[in-house]
Amino acid sequence: MTQTALGPKMKGLWLENCELRICDDIAQPQVLPGEALVRVKLAGICQTDLEMTKGYYPFTGIPGHEFVGEIKSAPDRPSWIGERVVGEINAFCGHCPLCLRGLPHHCLKRTVLGIVGRNGAFADYLALPLNNLHLVPDSVSDERAVFTEPLAAALQILEQMQIRPTDRILLVGAGKLGQLIARVLLLTGCHLSVMARHPSQASLISKLGVPLIQEKSFPQRHFDTVVEASGTAQGLSVDRLAVRPAGTIVLKSTYKGETVLDLASFVVDEITLLGSRCGPFTPAMNLLEKGIIDPTSLISGSYGLSKSIEAFDEASKSGVLKVLLRMQ
Amino acid sequence: MTQTALGPKMKGLWLENCELRICDDIAQPQVLPGEALVRVKLAGICQTDLEMTKGYYPFTGIPGHEFVGEIKSAPDRPSWIGERVVGEINAFCGHCPLCLRGLPHHCLKRTVLGIVGRNGAFADYLALPLNNLHLVPDSVSDERAVFTEPLAAALQILEQMQIRPTDRILLVGAGKLGQLIARVLLLTGCHLSVMARHPSQASLISKLGVPLIQEKSFPQRHFDTVVEASGTAQGLSVDRLAVRPAGTIVLKSTYKGETVLDLASFVVDEITLLGSRCGPFTPAMNLLEKGIIDPTSLISGSYGLSKSIEAFDEASKSGVLKVLLRMQ
Repeated sequence: MTQTALGPKMKGLWLENCELRICDDIAQPQVLPGEALVRVKLAGICQTDLEMTKGYYPFTGIPGHEFVGEIKSAPDRPSWIGERVVGEINAFCGHCPLCLRGLPHHCLKRTVLGIVGRNGAFADYLALPLNNLHLVPDSVSDERAVFTEPLAAALQILEQMQIRPTDRILLVGAGKLGQLIARVLLLTGCHLSVMARHPSQASLISKLGVPLIQEKSFPQRHFDTVVEASGTAQGLSVDRLAVRPAGTIVLKSTYKGETVLDLASFVVDEITLLGSRCGPFTPAMNLLEKGIIDPTSLISGSYGLSKSIEAFDEASKSGVLKVLLRMQ
Repeated sequence: MTQTALGPKMKGLWLENCELRICDDIAQPQVLPGEALVRVKLAGICQTDLEMTKGYYPFTGIPGHEFVGEIKSAPDRPSWIGERVVGEINAFCGHCPLCLRGLPHHCLKRTVLGIVGRNGAFADYLALPLNNLHLVPDSVSDERAVFTEPLAAALQILEQMQIRPTDRILLVGAGKLGQLIARVLLLTGCHLSVMARHPSQASLISKLGVPLIQEKSFPQRHFDTVVEASGTAQGLSVDRLAVRPAGTIVLKSTYKGETVLDLASFVVDEITLLGSRCGPFTPAMNLLEKGIIDPTSLISGSYGLSKSIEAFDEASKSGVLKVLLRMQ
């Protein structure tokens, strides 16, 4: 992860000390054994990218972890050259205690594309292990495929817990990730309600036929599960009031800062708090390929790499959903 | 819940503004339809009782919720008069939304014996709904039966989540409830380790053949599940370091005060935090009756009601386990 190494150079967006800048002399990623070099076609700006510019995580390098691209080089699997791929973001070692316990996403030595120890997707090229890459069927456009990673993150909720068709679910937050979570939860048949702050986000939820709940008046101790995707620490106080005893609050947002909780009340009401992060790519791609989930209405804008700082500014605005960076 | 009503009087321990006093002119409980009057024989002091004297919950009345007694009057089931019983502590309405969803322990209108809106067991008599009472088999002594309620609370962990025989579990805290949790968890065959603060508590754990883990050096990100029964807010920071990613922290302690958490780390590590309170009486009684769990080694002392304030002082001391109050 360096700007100064010898070898071929590329253009990319560089994050350092919470500052972004566009560079055209970044060293192309080295392709380690078992890895592939991917030419990025389209990448999405995620809330985590925005939080990193506020210091959520001290990352220096190229951010970006939602992408679709084309394999340029793959020494261990040359037949894949030219294939269109998306990629899981956690690159694991395969032999630490957590990998050996079936938890590669939590590998003690993992790098995470554009987040931890590995340059990301807001550049001409990225490198990822072949095991992380998934071929994109021809019928799935770049604009759909670029949503595979966040859609997988939404699906992770169903990987971690059972949502019953008869459950009453409240989704708090209808931003980039929240919109995808809403679409995933609807597929369970559950009774979903959504608390959306911004009118344009609320409008997209309404188009799904999902009832909106107001922050000022909502049924308390009512929801079997509350999914926290508001991206703010304030969300949790709403969640806590809305969830029924013996219910679950799913945490999907990462943000900088600490939260004060009365844990005795979690014991008395037997609340479950469930942290949820990255999810499974294959079912996400299935849903995109079959057209069961169409995320394209969530695209707020699309920018070239040379306009990527404007793209970040746009993505930071209240109510704006997915902003894409088009690399070529 | 009054000291001044007319009718027969009784002796009991009274809690008001965090102060305890022994009274001999407390009105005997009124027996409402569907309830029974129970002559208390033996009652146990729980950590929650001690926390209430520190203001954990603003209860005024007779504390105490672990007991064994004899039915003195039961207008709706006179055949039970003279029977020895233990009692579930949550008295529910049966028709609120939470009762109708199968969550009577979380009834919106519940009273809780010696904790919320209902006088408790540290007195000559208490009243509870017949539905809350469980007959005690002749083979189960009073000294064992009085542990039914906390043993049920320990079993609630297994009611809420799956503990696998191959799981690595850390129990943080080996006090009154922790000792029972250790005995329950051992029955799963799991690999249990315990962090015990006081030498006498550690010694009881060692007698079970369970390895002790030191607070200063313990394996991090290692345990599938960590059970928090330390009774202090500090416990959670140990729990958080000890639990593996995608693992569970079970909260069994209620105490006054707030805890500061970095919730983003719960998301990244996909930690589950599970609040756990009261549990099922029938299996607890099964384990006592069959001698699978013998709690009598946890008895630190036994006092008459007239010495109940000394009993509370004793129960508050570090390392002391179950202190019993003998009512007759």
